Order: sequence, then C-alpha cells, then structure tokens
Amino acid sequence: MTDRFADLRQVASTLGVDAVALVPGPNFTRAMGQSFMSHERPFLVVIPVDGPPAAIVPNLELQSWSQIGFDGEVFDWRDQDGYSAAFTALARHFPLQSLAVEGQVMRVFVHHALTSALPGLRVIDGEAAISGLRTIKTADDIARLQTAIDLSERALARTLDQVRIGQTEKHIETLLVQALFAEGAEDLSFGPIVAAGDGSARPHAHARADYAVASGDALLFDFGGRAGGFAADITRTVFIGHASDRGQAVYETVLQANLAGQAIAAPGVTAHQIDDAVTGVLERSPFADRIRHKTGHGLGRDVHEAPQIMRGNHTAMQPGMVFTDEPGLYKIGDFGVRIEDDLLITETGCRSLTSFPRDLTIVGR
Amino acid sequence: MTDRFADLRQVASTLGVDAVALVPGPNFTRAMGQSFMSHERPFLVVIPVDGPPAAIVPNLELQSWSQIGFDGEVFDWRDQDGYSAAFTALARHFPLQSLAVEGQVMRVFVHHALTSALPGLRVIDGEAAISGLRTIKTADDIARLQTAIDLSERALARTLDQVRIGQTEKHIETLLVQALFAEGAEDLSFGPIVAAGDGSARPHAHARADYAVASGDALLFDFGGRAGGFAADITRTVFIGHASDRGQAVYETVLQANLAGQAIAAPGVTAHQIDDAVTGVLERSPFADRIRHKTGHGLGRDVHEAPQIMRGNHTAMQPGMVFTDEPGLYKIGDFGVRIEDDLLITETGCRSLTSFPRDLTIVGR
Repeated sequence: MTDRFADLRQVASTLGVDAVALVPGPNFTRAMGQSFMSHERPFLVVIPVDGPPAAIVPNLELQSWSQIGFDGEVFDWRDQDGYSAAFTALARHFPLQSLAVEGQVMRVFVHHALTSALPGLRVIDGEAAISGLRTIKTADDIARLQTAIDLSERALARTLDQVRIGQTEKHIETLLVQALFAEGAEDLSFGPIVAAGDGSARPHAHARADYAVASGDALLFDFGGRAGGFAADITRTVFIGHASDRGQAVYETVLQANLAGQAIAAPGVTAHQIDDAVTGVLERSPFADRIRHKTGHGLGRDVHEAPQIMRGNHTAMQPGMVFTDEPGLYKIGDFGVRIEDDLLITETGCRSLTSFPRDLTIVGR
Repeated sequence: MTDRFADLRQVASTLGVDAVALVPGPNFTRAMGQSFMSHERPFLVVIPVDGPPAAIVPNLELQSWSQIGFDGEVFDWRDQDGYSAAFTALARHFPLQSLAVEGQVMRVFVHHALTSALPGLRVIDGEAAISGLRTIKTADDIARLQTAIDLSERALARTLDQVRIGQTEKHIETLLVQALFAEGAEDLSFGPIVAAGDGSARPHAHARADYAVASGDALLFDFGGRAGGFAADITRTVFIGHASDRGQAVYETVLQANLAGQAIAAPGVTAHQIDDAVTGVLERSPFADRIRHKTGHGLGRDVHEAPQIMRGNHTAMQPGMVFTDEPGLYKIGDFGVRIEDDLLITETGCRSLTSFPRDLTIVGR
C-alpha cells in the first residue's frame, strides 16, 4: 500500500520539524480524500516524519471519519467535555518539539491548544511548503477545474442574456448565482462581485441593492462555481447599451495586457516575468494611474494559492501550474475594467482553461 | 461623537491587556460597519484601552477603507512589498506588551507577523469576550435575522413543493439553493445539508449526486440564507411518500425534545438547564442510543456563536440572546431526524423566530 502521507512527511523532513499538522481545508481534503467542516471545534491530523499519524477528531465527526481509512491513533472529544484532554493525550502520544502548520488556515485557538499541551513547542508556518504540494495539478485536478470553469462560463452566458437596463447590481448577482447552481455548481468559489458604473472601480465591491445599471455603465463580473472541490475564478467586464470612447480604450488596454500574459506564460518563465509583461502593457498606456493590483494568483482547491503572479516572485513556471491572468484598470468616480482568465502551464507554453469571449461586449439593449 | 470602540476598549481593560485586535469577520464587520475580505492578505485593526486605534490595511482595500470614517493611523502595504514593514510600523506606533485576539478567527500567519514585529508580545485568546459583545442582539439585529429566517422558510416551502421520488439529494440541494437566492438571500449561511435515507444519519452529510430519494426515506434539510449580515439556521426533516412506524416514533420524540427547549427557555435559565431539558427527553425515550450532539448554539452574524446550549455551560439566558434548539436522533444504516428552531429570549420567556410547521410532513407523493 502506498503511503498517502509520503509527500507531507517529506515536507516535515525538509522543514526540519518533527511533524506536519493539517486542519480542515484544501490540504486536509486532498490528503484525506474527503472534506470535513471545522467551525469552533478543533480537528487536527498530525503526520510525523516517520511512523503512523494521529488525529484529534470531534466526536460528532467520528462516523464520517471512520469511512476514510485513517490508519493512526484517534483522540476524539465531545462538546460536553471540551477538547483540552484530547490535546493532552496527543501530546503524550507525540512529545513533539517542532511542528509545521498551515499558517493561512489554522486559527489561533488551535495554535494555543497545541502550545498549551506542548509547552516549548516550536510552531513554524509551513503554509508555502504544505500548500505547495497542490501547485502542480494532476490530470484529475485539471479535469475538475475545467468542469468548474465550463459550468461557470455557461452561467455567465445565461446571466448576460437576462441583463437589462434598470436592474440593480443585486438583482444581476442573484441571476448569476441562480445560473451557477442551475449549471451544476456544488458551491460558489467566493461571494461573486457584480459591480457597475463607479462600483466597478472598487476591486472587492459588494453588489448594491440600490444601484440600477444605466446605459454606458461598465458591468464587471468576478465569480466562479466549484466542482469536485475545485474553484473557477473568472472576470469579464461588459458595457450596458454602449461603451464610451474612453471605455473602449481602457478595455482594449486591459485586453492587450491579458493577452500579453497568455503570450509569455510557459515553463521556465518566472511569475515576475509574467507580471512584468502584463503590468508593463498597463504602465506604458495612458491609463497607468489606474493600476491597482498584481496580475494574478494560483488557482485550484483554493481561490488564492501559489504561485502569486507578481513582480519579485522569481518562481519559475512548471507544467501543471494553474494561475489567473487578471489585469485591471480602475478609477474611482469613473469605472473599472478587469479581464481574468485561468491559465494552465503546458509542456510547451500555456493553455487558457477559460474560453468565454474577450471581445468588448455590449449587453442589455 | 460616540466612541464606536468603547465596548472593545472595555474588553481590553477587563482582560488586562493593552489592546484588542480584530481581523475581517463578524466582529470586524460589526465594529467597522462594513464587511471586508481578507484571504491571504493580513488586515488588522488594533484598538487600545485608550486613544486612537490603528490599522494594517492591504493597499487594494484602501478605497473601500477610506469610506468608513476610521479615525486612526493606517499602515497599508502592497502585494509587491509584502506586509512585514507594515507590522514593524505598527509595532513602533504601538509598542504593545499584551494583546487580545479572536482565537476562532485570526489565523496563525497573522499571529506570527505580530509576534515577529513585537517579540515578547503576550497574545491571549479573547474570542469569548470579543464575540460576547454580539451575544445580546439589538432590535436591528433581530429584524435582520428575522428577514433571513423568513426568506429561508419561504425557500424551504418552495423546495418541498418540488421534491419528487427519484430525485437525487444533489438535485434537491440545487432546488433549495436556487430558492434561497430567489427569495432574496445575500449568501448561504453555510453549505446546506440535504440528506436522505441513511445519509440523514450523518450530522454533517454532503448531498450525494448518486443517491435518489425513495419512498419511506427521511429527508433532512439543515440550511439557511443570510440577510443584512445575519445567518438563519433551520432544520426540518420530512418523509418521502410515507413514514414507517419507527420513523414516526423517532420524529415524535425529537419534536417533544424540541418543544421542551421552547418551554423552558427564559431569562435566568442556564444553557445547561435547557440542554438538560431537551436531551433529557431523548434520554428517557427508547432511542437514547441515537443521541449524537448537544442542543444548540448561539446564532447571529456567525452560524456558531455563544452561548453553546450544552450541559456544563452555566451561562444564564438574557433577553436578546438567540440560539438554536436542534435536538436530533441518528442511527447509521437507518436514518436521522433533527428539528431545529431559532429561539429569541424575551423579557418573559422565549419566542421562536422560525415558524415553519413542525408537524410530521410527507412530501413527494
């Protein structure tokens, strides 16, 4: 039988710690083959460099846990009793001196429970190395992500057909969410951004119930659905009724930046070089003062994962990496445009998993 | 001008620390009057016992941040530069020796950034006290929660009308989610549980795409939509086609337990006493071996918040508290039943904010 934790043991060894700890989230799901919830209940798997793992499992989850074939010690705990005894038992079982954790996922209450049970424990943030195991996607990962992207694109097409002048951002968001689930999304990748007019200039805008889209507005959709645990992340910006000359010029600039990313991305090219190519197009345009963010981020089970596509990140691309190419230009009081594709690094270059048209599109007439 | 942070300063003072730190999440939203996202970017507000607060804000969020009227120092940082300089600047501005954080919300990477910038900083888990500020709901809070509950109940009614024998759990989940957004939900409270047959016996089941509901199945819905930032959390269990004698007996037992909770809940009664009354009904029944969890949890901006309704928690109920009353009985290989209402403690007793019928209901004929 292969050791399902071999790569995590290697991470522990490389980081020079006794063990790696995972809490529910994408790394946990990948390693255990099933997703679990956590909320206020500590739930933890500890994988040492050698030997069997151990877990702290809320009693409520024991039934589901028993089905995943976990071959290690389990310390369960009940709500009535609290969890400190389970951590004490874990500490007795594993008198760890050092532990790598997922710094972006583990919360402070679990960290405190660990360091209370194991005084002197050296906790290091192993996020980069642990989540790094998900950076090169398998064929199965890519198939799941493609499913998520395809359903998301069908949902956007369905939504654009229904957009009319006078609808509120909130109404259009509802159309999009309904379409995502109708097309088979198992969940939203994140709360979608549906922002029109000057709202499109705020990168993380909330859809407004009191703003009705008007002719000439830019209308930005940043959204995605999940399938098989993988998250699509797509942005398209359309115009309502018509696009002003400046709207067209800004749109064309962003599109050229996006295409520059697709043109350069290939094995061996660094994240820095990709951002430089993409952001360079924006910087050389008349709209350089509208730049607000880097080119993109890795994409998979998480909406934001490695590699960050930004200057200063000299990680070289490798076949199987997937990342977003999402340049944007924004001016508060005016409008924003972003065009985001999900790119897969192939053996020879890159392939866009997203195929929704990028031509300037007028809707709602 | 009133001090929007007065209650958080009081928490810091009571806990004997120099300051309280908030990260994006429900406490942050309540304090700042607007919700923000966080992901991989540290975002932090520090509120000292006295004097102006300070914040670490991702540059990307500065535009939205500028609109909330924050009257304190802001240290922003850009993706290209990383965040450590912002933490160093914060540390120089506030040479803190002790800090209370939200242990259930703050992640380890922010904790590490704080303790790196402030070596020797004593970080305590102030979750209970900080989130405790949300335990007594205001009239506005209750109105928002009622809106969330009402739309969720309409969505369930709409869904039950559409359920037919032979549909998969996944299909029924999609019907429910579409109905929630159609009724005006701004988000899901959580990924809903739609579980039939033996799946209903697993408390945190995932809807299966390969299980079709059959006559005689129990069908459990645990779900809710959000409105105004508040989350409904409702469970109803119905039967498909018909209910067996044992199904009816288990259902009646759970219903009596649920009603025992509604009968006893009142100001001055403890969470322990409520759980004791509810779980006592289950324990005295022929189905005591099917008990799997405590009675419930507080409900508001978070789906799981204080007070936990369980034995051993001697917190006395106060007017304005809201919690779930959700007894259940489960047997793997057979079925599960749970009936969950959202109860508000009033001046004289309690009132159920949920009003969806609790009578045994047969659907899908």
